[in-house]
Amino acid sequence: MKIKSILVACILAGLASCGNPNDKNTEDTVLLYLKGEKITNNNFKGTAWLTFLVRADSINRNGVGNVTFEPGARSNWHMHPSGQILLATGGVGYYQEKGSPKRILRKGDVVKCPANTAHWHGASADKEFIQIAITGREKGPTQWLAPVTDEEYLAGDK
Amino acid sequence: MKIKSILVACILAGLASCGNPNDKNTEDTVLLYLKGEKITNNNFKGTAWLTFLVRADSINRNGVGNVTFEPGARSNWHMHPSGQILLATGGVGYYQEKGSPKRILRKGDVVKCPANTAHWHGASADKEFIQIAITGREKGPTQWLAPVTDEEYLAGDK
Repeated sequence: MKIKSILVACILAGLASCGNPNDKNTEDTVLLYLKGEKITNNNFKGTAWLTFLVRADSINRNGVGNVTFEPGARSNWHMHPSGQILLATGGVGYYQEKGSPKRILRKGDVVKCPANTAHWHGASADKEFIQIAITGREKGPTQWLAPVTDEEYLAGDK
Repeated sequence: MKIKSILVACILAGLASCGNPNDKNTEDTVLLYLKGEKITNNNFKGTAWLTFLVRADSINRNGVGNVTFEPGARSNWHMHPSGQILLATGGVGYYQEKGSPKRILRKGDVVKCPANTAHWHGASADKEFIQIAITGREKGPTQWLAPVTDEEYLAGDK
C-alpha cells in the first residue's frame, strides 16, 4: 500500500514537471495564434479556422491570416490575382498548383504562390496543418474554383 | 531499498515523459527558421541575424524575412515607402514609431507599420527577439535614418 502511494505520487510529480500537456506537440506545431473563427463558407471542405492578423487597406495592401486546417480539411481550388505567400507553422499540410504534384508542407516551409495560378492547400489526412497566409489584395479578391476531389486530395499518397 | 529503486525509476520515467528539455522555452520562443546570416551593414546596432524567406519580384511585391535580434540589438530609425507588417514569434522586443511610446512585443504580437513612418525595432536589453517582417517593395526601398540613441532605446524602462 505504501509502495502504491509512492508510485502514484511519483507519477503525479512526473506529470506536473512536464507543464502543459499540449507542449508535447511543440516539435511539430507552433501555437503562435488562437484558432479564431470556424470558416463557414463553401470554399473549404472539412473544418478550418481563421484568425485575421492584418486586414488589407489602401496602403498596406496585404491581408495576413492564420489558418488551422483539421485533418482532412482543405480549400477548394482558387487563384489570387496578386499571388500569395504561405508560411507553414505546424502540423503536416498539402499544397498543390494545377498541373504540378502535391507538395507536403511542415513547420518552416515557405510557399510563394504565383498570381492567377490555380492551387489548393489544406491538412494531411491524419494531421492538422497550421499556416500563415499573406495575400496581396491590390488586384482584387480571391477567385474560387471547384472543390478538390478526393482523388486529387489523395493523389501521390502511399 | 526496494522503495528507493521505485522512487528513482518513477523520477526517471517522469523526466523522460517531458521530452526535449529545450521545450521549456517554447512558451517564449518559437524556432520556425534558422537564424540565417549575421547582418553586417551599419543600419543595425548590436548583433542581428536575417533569413530571407521570400524575395520580392514584379508580381509578389513583398519581401519576407526572419530577423533575430540578440539582447540589446536594434535597427536604426527607418521608413518603408509601402509600410511593413511584423509578426513577433519569440523573445521580447521593442517597436517604436516616432512620437509614440515604445511598445513591448512578444510571441503572437502583430504590428502594422504605416508607410513612410519613422520607426525602429529590436530586442529588449536582456532577451533576444525574433520576428517575421513582411515588407512591401512596390514603392521603393527602405529609407534609413539616424541610429537609435541609448536614451531612446531605454526610454520607459523601469
